[in-house]
Amino acid sequence: MTFTFNNKQVYYEVHGQGKPLIILNGIMMSTKSWAQFIEPFTQFNQLILVDFLDQGQSEKVTQQYDHSLQVDVVIALLEHLNLGKVNVYGVSYGGQIALQVALKRPDLIDKMCLFNTSDETSYWLSEVGHAWNKATHDGEAYYLTTIPIIYSPKFFNENREWMENRKKILVDVFSNQDFIDSMVRLTKSSEPYNVSDQVHKIKHETLIVGCEYDFVTPYYQQELLHEKLENSNLVFVPDSGHALMYEKPTLFVSLVLGFINNNKTEFTL
Amino acid sequence: MTFTFNNKQVYYEVHGQGKPLIILNGIMMSTKSWAQFIEPFTQFNQLILVDFLDQGQSEKVTQQYDHSLQVDVVIALLEHLNLGKVNVYGVSYGGQIALQVALKRPDLIDKMCLFNTSDETSYWLSEVGHAWNKATHDGEAYYLTTIPIIYSPKFFNENREWMENRKKILVDVFSNQDFIDSMVRLTKSSEPYNVSDQVHKIKHETLIVGCEYDFVTPYYQQELLHEKLENSNLVFVPDSGHALMYEKPTLFVSLVLGFINNNKTEFTL
Amino acid sequence: MTFTFNNKQVYYEVHGQGKPLIILNGIMMSTKSWAQFIEPFTQFNQLILVDFLDQGQSEKVTQQYDHSLQVDVVIALLEHLNLGKVNVYGVSYGGQIALQVALKRPDLIDKMCLFNTSDETSYWLSEVGHAWNKATHDGEAYYLTTIPIIYSPKFFNENREWMENRKKILVDVFSNQDFIDSMVRLTKSSEPYNVSDQVHKIKHETLIVGCEYDFVTPYYQQELLHEKLENSNLVFVPDSGHALMYEKPTLFVSLVLGFINNNKTEFTL
Amino acid sequence: MTFTFNNKQVYYEVHGQGKPLIILNGIMMSTKSWAQFIEPFTQFNQLILVDFLDQGQSEKVTQQYDHSLQVDVVIALLEHLNLGKVNVYGVSYGGQIALQVALKRPDLIDKMCLFNTSDETSYWLSEVGHAWNKATHDGEAYYLTTIPIIYSPKFFNENREWMENRKKILVDVFSNQDFIDSMVRLTKSSEPYNVSDQVHKIKHETLIVGCEYDFVTPYYQQELLHEKLENSNLVFVPDSGHALMYEKPTLFVSLVLGFINNNKTEFTL
Repeated sequence: MTFTFNNKQVYYEVHGQGKPLIILNGIMMSTKSWAQFIEPFTQFNQLILVDFLDQGQSEKVTQQYDHSLQVDVVIALLEHLNLGKVNVYGVSYGGQIALQVALKRPDLIDKMCLFNTSDETSYWLSEVGHAWNKATHDGEAYYLTTIPIIYSPKFFNENREWMENRKKILVDVFSNQDFIDSMVRLTKSSEPYNVSDQVHKIKHETLIVGCEYDFVTPYYQQELLHEKLENSNLVFVPDSGHALMYEKPTLFVSLVLGFINNNKTEFTL
Repeated sequence: MTFTFNNKQVYYEVHGQGKPLIILNGIMMSTKSWAQFIEPFTQFNQLILVDFLDQGQSEKVTQQYDHSLQVDVVIALLEHLNLGKVNVYGVSYGGQIALQVALKRPDLIDKMCLFNTSDETSYWLSEVGHAWNKATHDGEAYYLTTIPIIYSPKFFNENREWMENRKKILVDVFSNQDFIDSMVRLTKSSEPYNVSDQVHKIKHETLIVGCEYDFVTPYYQQELLHEKLENSNLVFVPDSGHALMYEKPTLFVSLVLGFINNNKTEFTL
Repeated sequence: MTFTFNNKQVYYEVHGQGKPLIILNGIMMSTKSWAQFIEPFTQFNQLILVDFLDQGQSEKVTQQYDHSLQVDVVIALLEHLNLGKVNVYGVSYGGQIALQVALKRPDLIDKMCLFNTSDETSYWLSEVGHAWNKATHDGEAYYLTTIPIIYSPKFFNENREWMENRKKILVDVFSNQDFIDSMVRLTKSSEPYNVSDQVHKIKHETLIVGCEYDFVTPYYQQELLHEKLENSNLVFVPDSGHALMYEKPTLFVSLVLGFINNNKTEFTL
Repeated sequence: MTFTFNNKQVYYEVHGQGKPLIILNGIMMSTKSWAQFIEPFTQFNQLILVDFLDQGQSEKVTQQYDHSLQVDVVIALLEHLNLGKVNVYGVSYGGQIALQVALKRPDLIDKMCLFNTSDETSYWLSEVGHAWNKATHDGEAYYLTTIPIIYSPKFFNENREWMENRKKILVDVFSNQDFIDSMVRLTKSSEPYNVSDQVHKIKHETLIVGCEYDFVTPYYQQELLHEKLENSNLVFVPDSGHALMYEKPTLFVSLVLGFINNNKTEFTL
C-alpha cells in the first residue's frame, strides 16, 4: 500500500492484528528485508512495515534532505493509520528516526525497541559515511566498504558461502546508479543528526540492545543511551555485529516480541 | 494444590491458559517468590509454579538427597499434569534441575530458559556452599553470607532501604531452624552435581542468560553452556547480579516471554 | 626493621636500590606475602614493604581505629625514610590507603598503581565485611567466607590442590584469636571509608587495574576511579579475581614494573 | 642503517643498550612511527627498529610476495646483528610476522609482545583488505576506508582536531602512487596468512594485548591466541582501538617495558 506525503508516495504494509508494532528500517534495508519476520511478529501483533523515502518501494527524493523528512513520514503514516499508540522497533537509521519521533510526538508511541542505535552521528561515524560515499564508483567497492563492517567478523567467517552469495546479489544492487544515489542521500541525511542533549526527555519504556562486535554503532553508544533514557533496559548480545536480525534471528525476534508484549512494567521491589 | 511423590506432598500452582511454562525455583525461592510475575506470565501462557521438596509449601525431606530427587519430582509433576511438552524456565538450582530433566526426559520439554545456571557444582561453588552451611548458627550470619553475593553490588547499594527491609524479613526466616535445615539439605543436594559431559546431548531450543555481576554462577559458565548446547542463544545482562528477576523484573519477564512465545526458530539465512 | 609511630612498632623492609616503590598490603596480607616478588621488584627499584598496624610483624592495636591511622603510618614511614617522592603500589585495602596518602600528602608520591581498589566502602561491601566478622567463631568458617570470593572461580577450580593446601594453612591462621581480632579491626577500619568526592583532586600518574572476576572490588569501581582520576590509565585483566598477584604473578609484576619505570608520560599526539 | 637482503636494501636503526627489543611495524607504519617511543624504550633496552620491505626507507618490492619474505628479512636482520635472543614487540602485521619468526626460528626470540594480532587472515579480514585495495583511486578515499577503522570511535571523536590534521598529511601520503602500490602489495602479502594450526608450538613467554574497540583484529582473536599459546598472558585495554600505541602511548609503553624487563616468570603458587 502507499500513502502520499508531500506529493511523494510512501510504501507500507500492514500485516495481522493485535497491538501494533512498526518497524523502522536500517539504512540499506526495506520492507522486503523483513519477509521472514512477518510470521513471528504477527503472532500477537499487527505489524507495520514501511520504506522510508528513498528506500525500497517508496519514492526517490532527488534533493538532499535530513532526518526530519523521514521523521515526518513516520508521523504522517501513524496519523494516517490512526492506530493510537504503537510500539516501535528501530534499528540503526531506523532507531535514530524512532528517537526523533518519540521526541516530536511522544503521544504516538507506546514502547520502543532501539537496536544498534546512537543519539548522534559522531565525527567518526560521519567519516565512515564519507568512506561509503567515496566507494560509489563500483558495486564491489561499495559492498566491500560497507558490508564487512555491518556483520560481525565471526558471522562473516562462519557463513562464508552465504556471504559470497549475498555479495553477488548486493554487488548487482550496488551497481545500480539509482540505488546508490539514494544510498548516498540517505547517508548524508544522517550527517547533521544529534539529539544527544534531548533524549533524556524520552520517558517511554524502551529496550536498548547493543552487540559486542557492532562496528557501526559501538556498544558504548548503547550504554550512553541507556544512561540517558530513564525507563530503558539494556541488553548486550555477545558475538553479534550490527546486523543482529540476520546474525541471530531467533534471539532478535524473542527480544522484540517479549518486550512489546509484556504488559507489566511496574514491579514492587 | 499438591500431589504426592514418594509419599511426600509436593505443592504446585497452575495459573491461566496457553502454552505451558513451568518455573523451577532457585534454591532460596518458592512459589511465593513469583507472586508479581503471575500476571505477565499468564498473558499468553499457562503458568506452573512448584516448590521443590524442602522448599516453600512442599514437604520437608529429613534425609539427605541429591538432585535426582528433585528431577524426579518435576518429571512426576509433568506426567501428573499431562500437558504434553512444556516450556521450562529455571534459575540457578532450578536451571540445574531443568538440564537434568532435559537429559532424562527430553520428550517432556519444548523450549528452555536457563538463567544463571551452570552445568556443574565446581569445587569453588561447593566451598561457597560450605560457607553458607557454616553460617547457620544465626540468622544474620546466614543473611550476610548469602544475600550480598546474590544481588549485584550496584543494585544492593542503589536499593539500600529495600535491602534493609528485606534483611529484617530474611534474618527472621533464616533464624527458623527448620528453614535453615532445609536450606542446608538443598545446598548439599547440589554438591555432587555435574552434567558437564552430558549437556551437549540437549537439543532443545534454549535461551541462556548470564549477568555481569553474577557472583554465584559467573558469566563464563553461561558461555560454556552456550558452547555446549547446539540450539542455544546467549544473552548478557549488564549491571545485574544473580538475582536478575528482582533486579530487572521487566527485562526478565520480556526475555522469557519473548523466547517461549516466538513460534519461529528456523530462518533461511 | 621497625620504626615507632605513636608508640607502636611498625615493621618494614627495604630491599635493593633505585627509584623507590612502596607496596601497601591488602587486608589479609603482610610483608611476607611479597617474598617471591622481591626479586623482580628490586631489578630496577628500591622496594619498601611495610606491615600496617595490626598486620604481620607490626604491633597490634587493641582499640578500634579507622583508615586515618594507617594513612599516618605510611606518611610517617615515608618521612622517616626520607626518599623523596616514591612510587606506590596498593591493592584493595592498600589501594584505599594509597588514595588517602595521595590526598593528604601528594608531595610524597610519584606514580601510583591502584589494583582492585575502590574509592569507598559501599553499603554492599560493608555487609560483605559484616559476613566476615560474623564468621570468626571458627577458622574454617572464616576461610570459607573470605577466600572463595577473593580468588576467581576459575583459578580456584584449576588449582584445587594448591587451594586445599592453602586452606589447611589458613584455617590454622584463622583459628588464632589474635589474628582474627586484628582482622576484625582492620575490616572495621574500612567501614567509614569514602573519598569518592575527593579523588578527582589526585593528579598523579596512575595505573588502575581491574579484574574480570573481582568479587570484592568489582570492575565498575575501577572504571569509576579511572573516570575521576585525570591522569589515570585503565587495564582490565580477563579471568582473574581479586587476588591478581597470586593468580597471574608474571603479569602482575610486568604491569607494575612497566608503569613505574616508564620515564615518559608526555607524548605529542 | 641498511643491510642487504636478496639484493634489497632493508632500513633499520639501533638505539641504546641493554636487552634487545625489536619492533615489528604494523602495515601502514615505519621506523619513523616510533620517534617518540625511542626515549622510553631505550631506558633499559637496546631498541631495534626496522622497515619491512615496501615500508618506509626499505626498498620497494615490485613483484607480489607473501609474509615469508618479511619473516626472512627479520631473521636475516637478527642474524646480521648477532645479538642472541631478542625480545620482539609486534603489532598487527608485525605481530603476524613475529609469530612466524617464532615458529621458524624460536632460538632467536626471548619474549614476545603481540598486540592486536591474529593467527590468520580470516575471510572477513581479507574482504576488509579488498576494500582498502579498491580505494586506491584517491587519497581521501583510502584515508576514509582505512583510518576510521584503525582508531577507536571515542579517540577519533575526542581528538577531532588532531585527526583532521592527520587527515591532511595522510591524504597526501595516500595520494602518492608509489606508497599506495606498496600498501596494496603489503595488504596482499597478508592474504594467504594462516598459522592457526601451528601457533600452539610457540612456547615463548608472551604478552597478548587486545583492545575493546579493535575493528581490525577483534578481541576474540586475541583470546584465541591466548588459549593456544601456553606461556601467554592476556590483557584487555578498554576504550582503545587498533592503534593502541597512539591512543594510549603511556600505557602502551608500560605494558611492553614491564613485560620484557621483568626477569622472573616462575612463581611457586
